Amino acid sequence: MKKIAVLPGDGIGPEIMAEAVKVLQALDLPLTLEWADVGGKAYETSGHPLPPATLKLAQEADAVLFGAVGDWKYDKLERALRPEQAILGLRKALGLFANFRPAICYEQLTHASSLKPELVAGLDILIIRELTGDIYFGQPRGRRTAVDGHFPGSEEGFDTMRYSRPEIERIAHVAFQAAQKRNKRLTSVDKANVLETSQLWKDVVTEVHAQYPDVALDHMYVDNAAMQLVKAPKKFDVVVTGNMFGDILSDEAAMLTGSIGMLPSASLDANNKGLYEPSHGSAPDIAGQGIANPLATILSAAMMLKFSLNLPDAAARIEAAVESVLAQGLRTADIWSEGTSKVSTIEMGDAVVKAI
Amino acid sequence: MKKIAVLPGDGIGPEIMAEAVKVLQALDLPLTLEWADVGGKAYETSGHPLPPATLKLAQEADAVLFGAVGDWKYDKLERALRPEQAILGLRKALGLFANFRPAICYEQLTHASSLKPELVAGLDILIIRELTGDIYFGQPRGRRTAVDGHFPGSEEGFDTMRYSRPEIERIAHVAFQAAQKRNKRLTSVDKANVLETSQLWKDVVTEVHAQYPDVALDHMYVDNAAMQLVKAPKKFDVVVTGNMFGDILSDEAAMLTGSIGMLPSASLDANNKGLYEPSHGSAPDIAGQGIANPLATILSAAMMLKFSLNLPDAAARIEAAVESVLAQGLRTADIWSEGTSKVSTIEMGDAVVKAI
Ligand SMILES: CC(C)[C@H](C(=O)O)[C@@H](O)C(=O)O
Ligand SMILES: CC(C)[C@H](C(=O)O)[C@@H](O)C(=O)O
Repeated sequence: MKKIAVLPGDGIGPEIMAEAVKVLQALDLPLTLEWADVGGKAYETSGHPLPPATLKLAQEADAVLFGAVGDWKYDKLERALRPEQAILGLRKALGLFANFRPAICYEQLTHASSLKPELVAGLDILIIRELTGDIYFGQPRGRRTAVDGHFPGSEEGFDTMRYSRPEIERIAHVAFQAAQKRNKRLTSVDKANVLETSQLWKDVVTEVHAQYPDVALDHMYVDNAAMQLVKAPKKFDVVVTGNMFGDILSDEAAMLTGSIGMLPSASLDANNKGLYEPSHGSAPDIAGQGIANPLATILSAAMMLKFSLNLPDAAARIEAAVESVLAQGLRTADIWSEGTSKVSTIEMGDAVVKAI
Repeated sequence: MKKIAVLPGDGIGPEIMAEAVKVLQALDLPLTLEWADVGGKAYETSGHPLPPATLKLAQEADAVLFGAVGDWKYDKLERALRPEQAILGLRKALGLFANFRPAICYEQLTHASSLKPELVAGLDILIIRELTGDIYFGQPRGRRTAVDGHFPGSEEGFDTMRYSRPEIERIAHVAFQAAQKRNKRLTSVDKANVLETSQLWKDVVTEVHAQYPDVALDHMYVDNAAMQLVKAPKKFDVVVTGNMFGDILSDEAAMLTGSIGMLPSASLDANNKGLYEPSHGSAPDIAGQGIANPLATILSAAMMLKFSLNLPDAAARIEAAVESVLAQGLRTADIWSEGTSKVSTIEMGDAVVKAI
């Protein structure tokens, strides 16, 4: 029996999670599911977005299935109590340093993209983002009185970007190994023409490359990567980058597909334990209406079965079922187009279960 | 008589600059032009990408017209000698803190965009990027042995992101005033859910807003901004952000138009002295072939006349001439399409001169 921590969270989180759970249960696997509050919901019930009981469950579980967190109503809270601290706290506490963010354009949804169909048809890129280092967690950080710079004596805010050699090595190994399983091309994104951290990043990725001679490595500056993703996204295979640049580029890449409601993600530790969540957010504007797309969460559950639970066949059954409901023309509102059938969150979940 | 420092630089720089100079000369304005080497070219002639004579000329001039710098052949040089240090050095030495990066989609070039025509037709956004602060220039930075973090004792690279209150205030004033002259909407982009620097940025922009009640201000996280630019770029009017995020988003926005060869930029100090350069790079792959698009540099010269030299009529004549050559169907290779006439760099410059 493997234990899954189920953390639905805020906004549409509970609705999409209910469908993913339904799909997991339909597979009749040796899994125990345990629920806990997280994010704004947890703040309301216990005063903190990541309460000790939730963290403990996540630590004890074999994998975490995460919905989404956040709502405008928490905007006025101090930063340490805001919903997104739950996700940052889980990444740090569980050591989830390797974030897999696929950007895939499903054949039937090509038209949903902002880009011309020929630029995105068949798009399948994988962004690997380092997730526990960089300016996200670097100390020191805070506010102080500037002693130098343009305006000494004035108040300033500051943060520290930093990466150590072993942190870069381990994410580089993950990325090269992922590229080996795909088209054997890896693009490492940095800003080495400006940043010291990036120069070390580039040096270390280049060194690790010696152990993966079958993978073609290139380096790209982050500003250029933001452009090339728009210009010719299909030229990429696997992209590896730091936490901050990865936050920006993985969202840009996801939006290129036009169907971010379809995209799962995985955040893994050194032993393939992971947290799985849709790439989209908590969408408080449509919460409770029963119209959210549950497929990204359902596909996140599939990633979980494959990466953390060693159940690749069950994962493949979910993926095939999702392909099948798309082929049947079923669409939630976010991916609906003329000539297809608009279904609710629950109807979509039911259809996936039926297809399994 | 006003003095212009003309710095052609590397790659296609000299070719596109020759056309911009031709256009300026055709206008018969009270300007003296003085040339100097910069970037890789300057490194070769005098051992430094920004030699003292070039810096002195730029400091004495009323404005700087800049081509482009950089070539792969300088990749192996130590960072302090690489071509891009010239542009960083000029920004810092001249105090060019306000970077104006318009992303405009010309009617005749809509098809050149990666995006569907309806998403970019008539696009006209202005990204204002702070250019002398942030992690680009923040001290301390370097390599050291980590004393804390995930791997104490290992080598690490680090950089400091920082913004002081007066640095944020002055760029906020520039941005609100620019928005007042346009559609009165300003989006401030930050990562205040994670970064201390961003939280101060957001607080200060909000405070400055009180002085511009006619401008509608909203705040957006950088990852979301990278998505919204792809999803619905026309929803933006003016965007203001820091140096690092602005580097990424302004290039993304420029590429959305599909015709980055058309986009000028201005980098201004507190007294409207400025450096003007095309938004594209030095394109060493096509240097010397006479096929580069000179229009971004020609339009940068127009921006210079308007912003730094108080010659708005002359600027308008250049802009009208560029519209006219496009209407005539003349296109360099980068923007060429079936049914239009392909012209060389020199032919394009000549056509603009003729249209003036
Ligand atoms: C909510 C936020 C802190 C988070 C991040 O920046 O990592 C989110 O944008 C993400 O990408 O998962
Ligand atoms: C060349 C490089 C240092 C520069 C920057 O990052 O600012 C460039 O990308 C730009 O945007 O002008």
